[in-house]
Amino acid sequence: MAEPLRIALAGLGTVGAGVIRLLETNAALIARRAGRPLQIVAISARDRSKNRGVDLSPYAWEDDMVILGERDDVDVVVELVGGSDGPALACARTTIEAGKALVTANKAMIAHHGLELAAKAESAKVALKFEAAVAGGIPVIKGLREGAAANAIERVYGILNGTCNFILSQMEDTGRDFADVLAEAQARGYAEADPTFDVEGIDAAHKLSILAAIAFGARIDFAGVDTAGISRLRAADIEQADSLGYVIRLIGMAEPDHSGAQPCLFQRVQPHLVPFNHPLAHVDGATNAVVAEGNFSGRLLFQGAGAGDGPTASAVVADLIDIARGQLTGGEIGAPFSVPVAELEAMGRAATGHRTGRAYVRFSVADRPGVLAEITAAMRDAGVSIESLIQKGRAESEGEVLVAMVTHEGPESAVTEALRLLEGSPSLTSAPLVMQILGD
Amino acid sequence: MAEPLRIALAGLGTVGAGVIRLLETNAALIARRAGRPLQIVAISARDRSKNRGVDLSPYAWEDDMVILGERDDVDVVVELVGGSDGPALACARTTIEAGKALVTANKAMIAHHGLELAAKAESAKVALKFEAAVAGGIPVIKGLREGAAANAIERVYGILNGTCNFILSQMEDTGRDFADVLAEAQARGYAEADPTFDVEGIDAAHKLSILAAIAFGARIDFAGVDTAGISRLRAADIEQADSLGYVIRLIGMAEPDHSGAQPCLFQRVQPHLVPFNHPLAHVDGATNAVVAEGNFSGRLLFQGAGAGDGPTASAVVADLIDIARGQLTGGEIGAPFSVPVAELEAMGRAATGHRTGRAYVRFSVADRPGVLAEITAAMRDAGVSIESLIQKGRAESEGEVLVAMVTHEGPESAVTEALRLLEGSPSLTSAPLVMQILGD
Repeated sequence: MAEPLRIALAGLGTVGAGVIRLLETNAALIARRAGRPLQIVAISARDRSKNRGVDLSPYAWEDDMVILGERDDVDVVVELVGGSDGPALACARTTIEAGKALVTANKAMIAHHGLELAAKAESAKVALKFEAAVAGGIPVIKGLREGAAANAIERVYGILNGTCNFILSQMEDTGRDFADVLAEAQARGYAEADPTFDVEGIDAAHKLSILAAIAFGARIDFAGVDTAGISRLRAADIEQADSLGYVIRLIGMAEPDHSGAQPCLFQRVQPHLVPFNHPLAHVDGATNAVVAEGNFSGRLLFQGAGAGDGPTASAVVADLIDIARGQLTGGEIGAPFSVPVAELEAMGRAATGHRTGRAYVRFSVADRPGVLAEITAAMRDAGVSIESLIQKGRAESEGEVLVAMVTHEGPESAVTEALRLLEGSPSLTSAPLVMQILGD
Repeated sequence: MAEPLRIALAGLGTVGAGVIRLLETNAALIARRAGRPLQIVAISARDRSKNRGVDLSPYAWEDDMVILGERDDVDVVVELVGGSDGPALACARTTIEAGKALVTANKAMIAHHGLELAAKAESAKVALKFEAAVAGGIPVIKGLREGAAANAIERVYGILNGTCNFILSQMEDTGRDFADVLAEAQARGYAEADPTFDVEGIDAAHKLSILAAIAFGARIDFAGVDTAGISRLRAADIEQADSLGYVIRLIGMAEPDHSGAQPCLFQRVQPHLVPFNHPLAHVDGATNAVVAEGNFSGRLLFQGAGAGDGPTASAVVADLIDIARGQLTGGEIGAPFSVPVAELEAMGRAATGHRTGRAYVRFSVADRPGVLAEITAAMRDAGVSIESLIQKGRAESEGEVLVAMVTHEGPESAVTEALRLLEGSPSLTSAPLVMQILGD
């Protein structure tokens, strides 16, 4: 058998420990599949003494993870530290500059610095791989970059954040409110102490921007993602969506927009109403799912565990096996974003006004006569046609009621205009909530 | 840009024409992704004069497809002729022996001769790829072989035949009987004039045996697949399954069996009852879906179009892009079945008797007193515990009624024994139908 692939591990949190456990548990079959053993030689983390439930004694320790890639006995560094900048980025840069391959699960770093790192990797002719950065254990980066490589991708969308999906599923099952379910998720370790990145859609936006770059040959534009989270959702929204035949899911969606002179990129993370008969409506708990629509393949769906140490380790080690197989004969791994960074297109942010669709709009209003007339008049004046309207009797708080409606198919700009007309109205007790309805 | 990858196409049916259309339509983006153009140089088919809706004049014509791989101007041959033996196999052998890569969509040939061809390809150090042979446009071979490569796969199962799934969905939607729906599917071109391969489960068994080899590192054992089709299903079965909370799907399932001294391989294609809340219950029409359960990844689901010229061409060209990317720098493609043929394990056929589960058993019986008592006595004597029983009043034909039951969890061997006890009973008007119930 050929020489082992020698691995250095930066970061020994739950995923790092998972990678060690996986490489131990499945060592024999991985060596058969990769054509050679995968062997950890060096490790680094912030705290050397912490008990991680795995034996670290066989591995060389480095206090400074940044220099792991400079060790002569290392072929590839696995970065599992996290954070878009700081030690993770420094470690990634030194590794590639030292001519070593880099595998990372760091979505924030790739969303912010992926193009710089990929350009460096292409010029150094080393692999940069990040399957674990998007949708945990699901091989969706590979699915898009290789499996669907023959297609012009027309749209990519999916459920990209397991924490949000877990919270939404729980709200659905229990009828409880967001804050309540979040608190429980935090207590049980399913959500971070500071849940902002997850519940405000930022984590999903990181992942979406990476998928969009690969799918559309576009330069990553994380700042161009129109991002909203799930923290404003109420139990009543879930209930009303259900009565109309929908579940609510946080959907990240990207598609190219060819309506102008220059192709633009539409990227949005937003809770959507998903019809019961759509495959994504059946994605529950911490599961993730990604749909890619190709011009020849049609709709491809990839689904699986979106987080957790086992699934994430599975994706990290799949990248390592790819590298081991390729480097066996000096083969190249190819451009990290499918086409070389220099050929990725800088696509402007698509205007959303001309997009059409059906929307769910929910108002919190003062419980007094005339409010409904005021809202429906604004809708009429803005040209929004209302398909159905539900006025909930139950007061959410003293003197407040919820009014929810579903619009007919129409331009998003009309709904925006209606809300503008209502801005500042004393009838509204808080800002309205708009969610798009996912088409078939 | 690097030299083109030069392709010869053997077989110009709908998929062959689809490959030509795809390579024309998406030429620019494919060249960007592959790092070089993909260029068809030569073609061959049975009938040169037939109009296929694509312009064949740019390509050299060979009357004999077997020698395509021997042409100096060809790097890779795409075999789309079909049939397990004959010209397809001859073409595959000569191509690999000539040191050229082979891409094929031919599940029958891979199921029967895949090991021989893979051994030849490994020794010639050329690529043998067959993504399109399983589940059409879904990159599930890649998903298993590479995406899930870090995992011991514990089970692989799914909906592998689009024709059967289309027929079952139609039966569900219309309440019509099998023969009736099949006839319509044939008239509309969704089913072959001779539908045996599809409706009797043989096509699904071909695909399952290929997936099992990759998932479990086993030598392909098509003959070891326990195969049943959907032709004995009646509208009443669909209706009764529905009333119990299930849909019926033709499921191919494989898993290793470690209960004996030597590991064995369980492979079965059979209609199953699938609970409404299972992801596979929502796979309708000609869609395919494959679930792989890894020891670290957990459950992965791959879903998409299982047939059709566009999706199949998408898979064929994905293989070509892989080859173009790899051969760019002399990289190897790796073992076609993930581990080298010489290391694949010859696993015996698993005995099914000790398997446990819940089953649906349907009897066609004479409409006279005592029959139900006779059946339930046999069940009792064989140790089968009945969870629910439906006796349909409606006579399917004169003097015949259907009795369907669902058993409690128990050994499959007990059900087999009960049916043996009833064998030859004049009460039964035809052989009973047994379907397993898919667990969560």
